[in-house]
Amino acid sequence: MVKLYENERIDYLVSNQNKSIIQSSEVFSYSLDAVLLANFVYLPIKRGSLLDLGTGNGIIPLLLAERTKANITGLEIQPRLADMARRSVQLNDLMGQINIIEGDLKEHHPHLQQSHFDVVTCNPPYFKVNGNSEFNDNEYFTIARHEVKCTLEDVIKAMKRYVKPGGKVAIVHRPERLVDLISLFRTYQIEPKRLRFVYPKRDKEANTLLIEGVRDGNAGLNVLSPLYIYEEDNTYTKEAKAIIYGR
Amino acid sequence: MVKLYENERIDYLVSNQNKSIIQSSEVFSYSLDAVLLANFVYLPIKRGSLLDLGTGNGIIPLLLAERTKANITGLEIQPRLADMARRSVQLNDLMGQINIIEGDLKEHHPHLQQSHFDVVTCNPPYFKVNGNSEFNDNEYFTIARHEVKCTLEDVIKAMKRYVKPGGKVAIVHRPERLVDLISLFRTYQIEPKRLRFVYPKRDKEANTLLIEGVRDGNAGLNVLSPLYIYEEDNTYTKEAKAIIYGR
Repeated sequence: MVKLYENERIDYLVSNQNKSIIQSSEVFSYSLDAVLLANFVYLPIKRGSLLDLGTGNGIIPLLLAERTKANITGLEIQPRLADMARRSVQLNDLMGQINIIEGDLKEHHPHLQQSHFDVVTCNPPYFKVNGNSEFNDNEYFTIARHEVKCTLEDVIKAMKRYVKPGGKVAIVHRPERLVDLISLFRTYQIEPKRLRFVYPKRDKEANTLLIEGVRDGNAGLNVLSPLYIYEEDNTYTKEAKAIIYGR
Repeated sequence: MVKLYENERIDYLVSNQNKSIIQSSEVFSYSLDAVLLANFVYLPIKRGSLLDLGTGNGIIPLLLAERTKANITGLEIQPRLADMARRSVQLNDLMGQINIIEGDLKEHHPHLQQSHFDVVTCNPPYFKVNGNSEFNDNEYFTIARHEVKCTLEDVIKAMKRYVKPGGKVAIVHRPERLVDLISLFRTYQIEPKRLRFVYPKRDKEANTLLIEGVRDGNAGLNVLSPLYIYEEDNTYTKEAKAIIYGR
């Protein structure tokens, strides 16, 4: 049995009703963006090592484990979230595949080997911090959403540190940060290779992007077909349904 | 009357049957990409100065003149094309609005004022030149399609030279060059602000992109809704029709 603390609940993964995850409306619940990223990224199927930076309650490792037998490591800076993630791994009997460690992605972590991972993922905080930022008073939400503990450059620098040459990194972010993403990828010798924009509906502007790069890769980018989430009547599109509820 | 040389023909502009353009299958005929760019770019309506680099037979100035009363200059390196463009301007009685000049965008042209133009457009050659490039034996096609006379960096450097601070530049290109485009925009202090991908059909990868930047602009990019050209049955989509045949 796995411990649950006050205000924690066990949710089923929507994509797989046999898997469950510990969530808390006070601390962290996973978002559609994590699901999109876990679906988008290239994965080796049978072996290899994956790393998820800023893993939160471990949603991305749990989703990736649906698609691969590779070893998965999640790095999380907040002890309470790392503990939640670890208990979710136990809940699903995935201790043999997923390892959650606590630490700051800005520093080299002694348990993580440099230039080692086949794939490094991250669903980072989206919002820049500036003098006028109004933070959510909930510190957990603030850290998940705002670049308080790490900037986008910190994230990409860490991805470069841990991914092996020729390995892949994948990020979900907002389209308004595309220019920063591409500039930083190039700064850290990660070549953008696949880009997909997510649109809430047809005829709306994109509100999310998925980008994958290859460390030391050759130039050349594919822009995939757009992903629409909702139909006009606010039901999920066929493709969104397939991603969210599993194929 | 305007002279026509051997193998030249007069075509109507598809978007406006009252306008015509001199084309030649041996030298230059305009493409959909020029039409998309002329439709995409921001324009001041009543006054101002616009510049089109590598204007070919002048298709972009002619199309822009449909949308604005601003002065339009087209710069073309190939004398034969500059002459064709000039005769098309005469054919349409637009000598008061459009000025075609001959010259190389790599050098500062004495007739063009630096940091002066409200908008600078370019439909550049798409393909990098390398040792193995197989060129079309037709020199006109080669120069239009391959970076023989100018690289993408030359184009963006020239855009920066002629656009005024706060002015706009717009380019049509291939998605695989997006990373280069964004890096070069930033190198020359042009901030990407609007990006639109063009897909031949739904569920295909994008094959064209339209990008607009602002000299010395603030960071922040909008990714517009996708533009699809063809329906499943190979007829134009409603939006493509509106762009191509005029609104």
